[in-house]
Amino acid sequence: MNALDSSTASVSSANKSWRETAAEKRQTDMEKIPLAWRLRESTVAEAKIRRSLVGTFIEGLLNAETQAITAMDVADLVQEMGSGRITAVRVVTAFCHRAAVIHQLTQNMLEIGFDMALKRAKELDDYFQAHHQLIGPLHGIPLTLKDQFHIKGLETSMAFVGWIGTFEGQKGTGKERNFESQLIREFHSLGAVPIGKSPETSNNILGYLWSPHNQQLSSGGSSGGEAVMQALRGSAFGIGTDIGGSVSMPASYNGIFSLKPSSGRLSMRGVANTGPGQLVMPTVPGIMGQSVATLRLVLKALLSKKPWLQDPYVVPLPWRDCEEYHPKPKSNMLHHPIPAIGFMANDGVVTPHPPVQRALRMAKAALQEAGYNLIDWDPPSNQESLEIHGCIARGDGCPDVWRALQLSGEPEVPEIEGLFEPHGPREPMSLPEYHDVVIHMRDYRNRYQDYWMSTATRSDSGLPVEVFISPVTPTAGLLPEKFFYAEYTNSTNVLDFPTVVIPVTTVDENVDKVDAGFRPFNETDRLNMDAYDARAYHGAPTAIQLVGMRLSEEKLLSMAQVVVDALDRYKTSSI
Amino acid sequence: MNALDSSTASVSSANKSWRETAAEKRQTDMEKIPLAWRLRESTVAEAKIRRSLVGTFIEGLLNAETQAITAMDVADLVQEMGSGRITAVRVVTAFCHRAAVIHQLTQNMLEIGFDMALKRAKELDDYFQAHHQLIGPLHGIPLTLKDQFHIKGLETSMAFVGWIGTFEGQKGTGKERNFESQLIREFHSLGAVPIGKSPETSNNILGYLWSPHNQQLSSGGSSGGEAVMQALRGSAFGIGTDIGGSVSMPASYNGIFSLKPSSGRLSMRGVANTGPGQLVMPTVPGIMGQSVATLRLVLKALLSKKPWLQDPYVVPLPWRDCEEYHPKPKSNMLHHPIPAIGFMANDGVVTPHPPVQRALRMAKAALQEAGYNLIDWDPPSNQESLEIHGCIARGDGCPDVWRALQLSGEPEVPEIEGLFEPHGPREPMSLPEYHDVVIHMRDYRNRYQDYWMSTATRSDSGLPVEVFISPVTPTAGLLPEKFFYAEYTNSTNVLDFPTVVIPVTTVDENVDKVDAGFRPFNETDRLNMDAYDARAYHGAPTAIQLVGMRLSEEKLLSMAQVVVDALDRYKTSSI
Repeated sequence: MNALDSSTASVSSANKSWRETAAEKRQTDMEKIPLAWRLRESTVAEAKIRRSLVGTFIEGLLNAETQAITAMDVADLVQEMGSGRITAVRVVTAFCHRAAVIHQLTQNMLEIGFDMALKRAKELDDYFQAHHQLIGPLHGIPLTLKDQFHIKGLETSMAFVGWIGTFEGQKGTGKERNFESQLIREFHSLGAVPIGKSPETSNNILGYLWSPHNQQLSSGGSSGGEAVMQALRGSAFGIGTDIGGSVSMPASYNGIFSLKPSSGRLSMRGVANTGPGQLVMPTVPGIMGQSVATLRLVLKALLSKKPWLQDPYVVPLPWRDCEEYHPKPKSNMLHHPIPAIGFMANDGVVTPHPPVQRALRMAKAALQEAGYNLIDWDPPSNQESLEIHGCIARGDGCPDVWRALQLSGEPEVPEIEGLFEPHGPREPMSLPEYHDVVIHMRDYRNRYQDYWMSTATRSDSGLPVEVFISPVTPTAGLLPEKFFYAEYTNSTNVLDFPTVVIPVTTVDENVDKVDAGFRPFNETDRLNMDAYDARAYHGAPTAIQLVGMRLSEEKLLSMAQVVVDALDRYKTSSI
Repeated sequence: MNALDSSTASVSSANKSWRETAAEKRQTDMEKIPLAWRLRESTVAEAKIRRSLVGTFIEGLLNAETQAITAMDVADLVQEMGSGRITAVRVVTAFCHRAAVIHQLTQNMLEIGFDMALKRAKELDDYFQAHHQLIGPLHGIPLTLKDQFHIKGLETSMAFVGWIGTFEGQKGTGKERNFESQLIREFHSLGAVPIGKSPETSNNILGYLWSPHNQQLSSGGSSGGEAVMQALRGSAFGIGTDIGGSVSMPASYNGIFSLKPSSGRLSMRGVANTGPGQLVMPTVPGIMGQSVATLRLVLKALLSKKPWLQDPYVVPLPWRDCEEYHPKPKSNMLHHPIPAIGFMANDGVVTPHPPVQRALRMAKAALQEAGYNLIDWDPPSNQESLEIHGCIARGDGCPDVWRALQLSGEPEVPEIEGLFEPHGPREPMSLPEYHDVVIHMRDYRNRYQDYWMSTATRSDSGLPVEVFISPVTPTAGLLPEKFFYAEYTNSTNVLDFPTVVIPVTTVDENVDKVDAGFRPFNETDRLNMDAYDARAYHGAPTAIQLVGMRLSEEKLLSMAQVVVDALDRYKTSSI
């Protein structure tokens, strides 16, 4: 044993416990995958060195039944089950199979619940046999969730090693594997079937989650595991959580759709969650999936359960059909007020990478071609959100995260390095200091609202913009540790605005070059643009976000469909 | 000059400035009252020593026109103006006259705006002449507000001497007398006419506000000035503010109706207001008036302005007719689910005084006679609210109040003695401590909601109770400095439940005796019952409150009308 070995041994001895616990967790997960669904080691090894996992590679690992079922959108699946042409067991089996394959390729399942999912699917089939109707609008639909929601029979670790075998870090509570978040109960009664839970993007149990479209790039955080699952269609839809882009950014990097609602629209009751942001800018559940139609279907189904009757923090707002916008035929648009849409290509703080700029130009051209009235969006600056967001979300120094790490002795992942002092959390802000930031937040929200209403003076209709378009994130793809700016999304949390992420295109290294005239606004802007690497990013999905007024999810989703349809027509006509 | 004089001079020299400022303010107000409306000194002197000002005494100081107009409820006034039988100028003149008389008797106007009110009334009449229709649902309706709302042309001091001549304590902002709270703008466009603003119950400018029903008793706080105005009908309705019963308690002590909505239903934008409670338990505007119909009319009118478009903290909930309960004829009640009503006579922490107990028994008997299903209400304890409320509302040590007092050097009023250390505010709670209290609050709200939903298992209808009845305050009347317990109302703020106060009866010294078997639950309970004085309280109004689920104002108001109608029938049949 040489000096190096000795030092390593000493380190690994100190860390042995958490590494072993994490290894056991990985092993337990793997054992839940039926042998028939296990991949060869050579396949897993090949996957690691591939640039992309989507398309023919993943499909080639699946049988025809699994391919066919997992290719269907939620509405189609429900229709097929409702007509009796397909059973819930077949649907759930197909998605479990696919999810099992995805997990082996990407390590994106912290909890595997295939057995209980299939048992529930059998119950649903029995119900259908007996009653000749579906149990609810999401009958037999498999979903996955970020491992922050509690499901009976599964563990919740949020990828903290120290939480394994506990309930939110505590032992002997009686709630271990025996507690359910309200959202899970709602899904259960709607007929949806959870098949597993996904980790934070960077974690010490399963490692790092890469984008399956381009494995040189990050899947984005923090709901990266869920985004990977959706990108590879391991479940019919997914649920992440968001306090500053944790749903929207991974959706953008993985080429999927997402809805981050306003707080108070969906229940966070009984979800592992702390931090002072919960006081005034709570974390929200976000829906991730393959289409706007799926996001709409899932939100509408959840609201049909009247979540406010169980969760006093949910606003009693049922789904409102009357708030949806229904597009008029172009020939007929003159006879109706044409909706105005705000358009922000650049917030003046950090310039998006060229492929994001191109996605925005495409959306603008598509909407203009479709006859919509685009209006420049120049609201109170995201620079203000930058000053507010971190204080609101982490002003306490995050002692809860520190304690969770201390339970096992696992190290901080690189993404949160610098969050703590060497021997503990930072001093929290004082209550009066925190209060001052909240007053600033209120003032920012008020001025933003004034700006929004002021657009009525500039629109063709004489009405304020219905929604606005902005970048999701300034980076078209994400190299780990090359992430400098989150205010395009953070600002929507500070403002409590609902957002929808819409995939637009992919990076093309031959087209997307940095403008020779680019002059950075500031150091962050420079760092961000310097991180752009057309070659490394090539093929990465690029998205825009659509942002609505607080608690206007119905209008927002209907306008998102307008954007998607306009983009589809635009792309077809441009070929 | 003897030693005593010298000492007094020295004290008064130090205090001269704030006393002089306050005196000037009183003088300025008085000068705004037309000579024709001034009372003789002898009348004012007589009023001071009377037990009650209501009824013949106040009516005797008014002419027939003023008596007739101010006796009408809001709906009738609107109808009269809408038919052209009466002008806005006559309506506003009558209420200004009456308010002027009330102010001279009680000192309950910090700001007098008769001139601008009459100018606006003339505009409204001109509008009606030109368009043959009312400008809005509150056309020509005079209102008063607690002096916390900003109105152009008037000052806002919140009765802080140091705020006189400033904008919220600051000079040279350009906003002095030149800024308007959103609610005021809404009232303006609805046609309502502010005629003045009322003070906190105990203040160094105008002195103490007593109940006009029994001038030995307090009007209750903090919206006592407004409650006195409503009790004596100096305006058609009033707006107070509430973070722990500041609307409900004075309503109870003054024999009027009030609605405290959930936060986020009405706008508090641009209202003088601070303190950490605003983070998670914001102050709300409350409506005070002569009938449930008035509260409903005013709320419905305000919501018709879509306040959420201007104030991002207002929830986009329009008035919902479909949420109102419509009573069925008793003969027909068997064919409909009978609404269940929770009933709490005593929270097990502090026992209400005998007249409050009697009011509760009357409500119970009246509702049972009307066929309603009353269910014992035994939710998570108000003791928990006691532990939460003070920390949430004043956990920062109230440095804002301290600073406001320091501006002029005025002393603390007795009601807030003990709030501060001798030389400054107390140390604030730390942010993590505050956060822990908020977690407790969330847990309390969740358990309360669970309890509420659990009543479905005990009701005849199989549905949870629609609303519940409880005391407003354990004291039937209020002797200054004999106030020990506010949790019957504080808990509704901690829970963010809307409440309606319904006057029921008055104290009868011959009937309302302390039960010989009374055994206090604790020291507070003993102190409270010891403060009961049947003789002193005789004639004081006594009320109950009706409490609804969060943001359920429509259902709550409709159920309040049910209670009022049942009580009316019960009282008639008992005669």
